[in-house]
Amino acid sequence: VSAPRVLVTGASGFIGRECVRALLARGCEVHGVSRSLRADAEPELVWHQADILRQTDIKRLFSECKPTHLVHSAWNIPQQHYTSSENLLWAARSVDLLHEAQCSGVQRIVGIGTCAEYGLDHELCCEDSSEMHPMGMYAQAKYATQVLYNAAAAAGTFSTAWARLFFPYGPFANLKGLIPYTIGQLVRDSPAELSDGEQERDLLFISDIGDAIAAVLFSGLQGPVNVASGTAIKVSGIVRRIGELMGKPDLIRLGIRQSDRLQANRWVASVKRLKHEVPWHPSTSLDDGLRATIAAATANGEEARK
Amino acid sequence: VSAPRVLVTGASGFIGRECVRALLARGCEVHGVSRSLRADAEPELVWHQADILRQTDIKRLFSECKPTHLVHSAWNIPQQHYTSSENLLWAARSVDLLHEAQCSGVQRIVGIGTCAEYGLDHELCCEDSSEMHPMGMYAQAKYATQVLYNAAAAAGTFSTAWARLFFPYGPFANLKGLIPYTIGQLVRDSPAELSDGEQERDLLFISDIGDAIAAVLFSGLQGPVNVASGTAIKVSGIVRRIGELMGKPDLIRLGIRQSDRLQANRWVASVKRLKHEVPWHPSTSLDDGLRATIAAATANGEEARK
Repeated sequence: VSAPRVLVTGASGFIGRECVRALLARGCEVHGVSRSLRADAEPELVWHQADILRQTDIKRLFSECKPTHLVHSAWNIPQQHYTSSENLLWAARSVDLLHEAQCSGVQRIVGIGTCAEYGLDHELCCEDSSEMHPMGMYAQAKYATQVLYNAAAAAGTFSTAWARLFFPYGPFANLKGLIPYTIGQLVRDSPAELSDGEQERDLLFISDIGDAIAAVLFSGLQGPVNVASGTAIKVSGIVRRIGELMGKPDLIRLGIRQSDRLQANRWVASVKRLKHEVPWHPSTSLDDGLRATIAAATANGEEARK
Repeated sequence: VSAPRVLVTGASGFIGRECVRALLARGCEVHGVSRSLRADAEPELVWHQADILRQTDIKRLFSECKPTHLVHSAWNIPQQHYTSSENLLWAARSVDLLHEAQCSGVQRIVGIGTCAEYGLDHELCCEDSSEMHPMGMYAQAKYATQVLYNAAAAAGTFSTAWARLFFPYGPFANLKGLIPYTIGQLVRDSPAELSDGEQERDLLFISDIGDAIAAVLFSGLQGPVNVASGTAIKVSGIVRRIGELMGKPDLIRLGIRQSDRLQANRWVASVKRLKHEVPWHPSTSLDDGLRATIAAATANGEEARK
């Protein structure tokens, strides 16, 4: 029996590269597609250059690669464009990708979603019972894509799951999030000026996310599945721990900013499906994940000072 | 001030042609697009041949036509393919159409939805409060498209409404529906064999639908709006009335078939938004609508016997 041949879109991205690593670790033949190849890509990765936004590129890609499995993590929107209509095009091209995957005989597809599909004000976000209130263009486009992926699988010759990521963190995350901002300030010996930090979040370290997505891909799970820790942690607790781990607790300044009213007070996943139906559970503790993230940021900071 | 220039996709279809008529009656410059032109199209209609499923055709269409308004009624799926993955492609191309419309400066867009987006078991289908359970590929693809249209308008330079049609009837409807079947049987002096007919439906005559869509287009309404009568009528009442109007009440045989469990017992619209926010109300009585439908079927029947 030959190894599964998995195509990963967005293979150079924050999520995609972790999927590539996790799939290689599971012995898969991994093909990655992105607009440009990372210099530090794994040598075992079979790389295809293509722009998923071009339909002709999508067709060529499947005829070159002939994958048995697909992880679709590409959705190349800069964070400041999360409200832009480019998200619409990613939804449309994600459907074209699905269609082409179906035509070329792919058996199993995992799409990447977001906790923002749930919207605000959920005590716990449950795949099967929470009423969906996706807020903003990015979340609505992801949600609509999920509806279409789910519908396609019900009618198709393949199966799909939709991995809703909660709060991924780790080295190389975009520099505007809470954790990169806080670490970045402390690396420069500047204070991290924050809100009161009463918000509760559900964090998952990036290598755990890649491993969870790989596990979902080889499970029989259908439809949406939260990829998260299932543990609520207060923002104040996260940043205080960063301060302690970096030996600069006095630079953590809580209560200085207003908290963003467009953000949920609590965004925590039910992990029942992930735990029992995949089944999968995280292996990286918050301390270990924060230490790895801090180490990478510190190395980058030293690199920049050279 | 020049007349609005309205582009109607699917202009040769059951819904599209009624939109064309209603828009011409309102003094619009109407452009229609379809894969082939109907022989009996209105002479004032400016027709463009294009296949909405081809992105290059979509681009050409907007540069030729430069519409100010768009009614997107094309969704060319034969009824037996309502579960097919072609619906996905219509969703994707509908998004491309929207994107192209936005790029070419269209101010106002109306998309066409369906009551099936609501799913079963609603006492009354309300745009703002009913939880959506779209059932099957067609309804799910329409629903996802609506989510994307709504999201685009929130971020865009144009506004959109989404007309959810309930049960359109009239001449030339597909021959498998309840009303065409019943009339067709009676035209041939054959019995119409039906379920007990306890299901409740919300019917709207096709010319009223065209007029309502035109009214929605020129209203300021945003988001989904039910296009329906707001009146529940039992299937048994509809078919008995057809029997009476055709003078063949004895050919109506209720209770012979099992009712379809995949169909709702009750599918009735709240018309609050349509009545107050557009505002619009129907002008064709059920008797007049049925008479027109019967007359057309009888003429067709005579035509066929010649």
